[in-house]
Amino acid sequence: MTTRVGIYGYGNLGRGIECAVNAANDMELVAVFTRREPSALKIASKNVAVVNVKDVASYKDKIDVMILCGGSATDLPTQTPELAKLFNVIDSFDTHAKIPEHFKLVDEEARKSNHIALISAGWDPGMFSLNRLYANAVLPNGKDYTFWGKGVSQGHSDAIRRIKGVKDARQYTCPVQAALDAVRSGSNPELTTRQKHTRLCYVVLEEGADPAYVENEIKTMPNYFADYDTTVNFISQEELNKNHSGIPHGGFVIRSGATGVNNEHKHIIEYSLKLDSNPEFTASVITAYTRAIARLYKEGARGCKTVFDIAPAYLSPLSGEQLRATML
Amino acid sequence: MTTRVGIYGYGNLGRGIECAVNAANDMELVAVFTRREPSALKIASKNVAVVNVKDVASYKDKIDVMILCGGSATDLPTQTPELAKLFNVIDSFDTHAKIPEHFKLVDEEARKSNHIALISAGWDPGMFSLNRLYANAVLPNGKDYTFWGKGVSQGHSDAIRRIKGVKDARQYTCPVQAALDAVRSGSNPELTTRQKHTRLCYVVLEEGADPAYVENEIKTMPNYFADYDTTVNFISQEELNKNHSGIPHGGFVIRSGATGVNNEHKHIIEYSLKLDSNPEFTASVITAYTRAIARLYKEGARGCKTVFDIAPAYLSPLSGEQLRATML
Repeated sequence: MTTRVGIYGYGNLGRGIECAVNAANDMELVAVFTRREPSALKIASKNVAVVNVKDVASYKDKIDVMILCGGSATDLPTQTPELAKLFNVIDSFDTHAKIPEHFKLVDEEARKSNHIALISAGWDPGMFSLNRLYANAVLPNGKDYTFWGKGVSQGHSDAIRRIKGVKDARQYTCPVQAALDAVRSGSNPELTTRQKHTRLCYVVLEEGADPAYVENEIKTMPNYFADYDTTVNFISQEELNKNHSGIPHGGFVIRSGATGVNNEHKHIIEYSLKLDSNPEFTASVITAYTRAIARLYKEGARGCKTVFDIAPAYLSPLSGEQLRATML
Repeated sequence: MTTRVGIYGYGNLGRGIECAVNAANDMELVAVFTRREPSALKIASKNVAVVNVKDVASYKDKIDVMILCGGSATDLPTQTPELAKLFNVIDSFDTHAKIPEHFKLVDEEARKSNHIALISAGWDPGMFSLNRLYANAVLPNGKDYTFWGKGVSQGHSDAIRRIKGVKDARQYTCPVQAALDAVRSGSNPELTTRQKHTRLCYVVLEEGADPAYVENEIKTMPNYFADYDTTVNFISQEELNKNHSGIPHGGFVIRSGATGVNNEHKHIIEYSLKLDSNPEFTASVITAYTRAIARLYKEGARGCKTVFDIAPAYLSPLSGEQLRATML
């Protein structure tokens, strides 16, 4: 079975999906949908249509799963439910607090139009969520910790760029090693925001800008930096381009729990990711779940799902027999 | 919904199950089945029947899931298919090479008698298998590594005890830090058996035994020790009892893979366990999967499953809505 895929939005994530889908023997990229003028968009794949979003309905019967690659702030809240009227859809909606609301909207549209949908695929939400669930189910008596980094936060980098006098900036979120060590020791520490992560900033100033002013604006910025130990380094544009152009990320999900008649036995479950490219890894997760929902659709599943609802075997191109023989 | 549970076999694993089931609000331990004379067996729970295995059929309608706590070498290959005729069953069958055969036997009996079964729950096979599958599905272009330890290997400890002149022994399997570091660096090393693990032995000699003879017997033992760097420490029975009476274990599943048009981006996915009590953690995994198969049975699922076939949400006592709001 070949899954015919559409990509809706061609930024970093869309390009990552293109790469992952082309690498999968059981998937075929049919079209890339863009808000731009199609002739102005050059994609990496040959023989794949580039189509304006206004013509998406004409692909209704040509695509098994539409992969939405827009942003969670303004794109996905409307795009995913809207496209669920025409297609099986999958997205990487990552505004954790709004997931229940997004789920409800997508579920309604998918059920009305007899489609399957999966929201919030990626690594957090996504692989990290799975690990939180598994670890909680296995060790009900315990405590969860999630650390992010070292990695680039696009939102924090943008916030710095909005400061007067800043030409360019890159912000890394870094887990605090001492906090990680304390969690791994099984001592179940209570950790403040400041104790868990630091923020490391590389800033390029505009000509004549005041570094002291910029540094103070960053360090006192509410929500983004004020609650953290923040380091600001001023560098040249050349150095930023040379050493900070990647989009690495990662993090740790740790559950520390106890078993035994008197909770005398401690256990640590740890899952970690170290990623050179945040969007390409996210795309790889989405691509595996695309395979899963295409299969589940054929089996008759409908409505909105999350990674919690998908049996792991559906993600793999291998058969149940092959999986049992090689990976169990 | 309360899941009524039976425990079949009351060794370390059975006691761990008892503890985990009693800690779960949605489970009730109905009976413990033993090959011993029931009156001779004292269990930790009050008001729970202790029953000889020959009377197990009389519990056919009183138990939703029978948890098999025997060994993989001789107990489970016959017990799991046999009991699948009467009950929904779950086991921790861990002879990796024989899983396909065991699956087939259990599946046949479960289908004939209209039951559900789950085999090979635990951490390896079990949580480690899940992580191998997820990581392979997400990073198809990559390499897998599994390390075990530091932990007690019962099989290797037994092998030492069979040597003439050995009174008692405990063997720890230890991952080699340099190998772990090489894997985490993303260099995808080819590692020999000797490069991945070392074996650390604590041995109590019988009076008058020759330590040089025993040490040589251990270090040259085929399959068990000959392919490893092995350290042998002779200690007193008191010291063994004091410092080596626990059953800790753990390990690491790492996948190192690449994405990008030219595989230019490296990614490391790592899952690790650090367990004070191997049998209690295994029991905790089995208990979560017991909840899952009881639910799946009510939904109409039949036949033999593995952890690969179970959607994660089934493991948790929380509803889908609660899970999406708190863990996604």
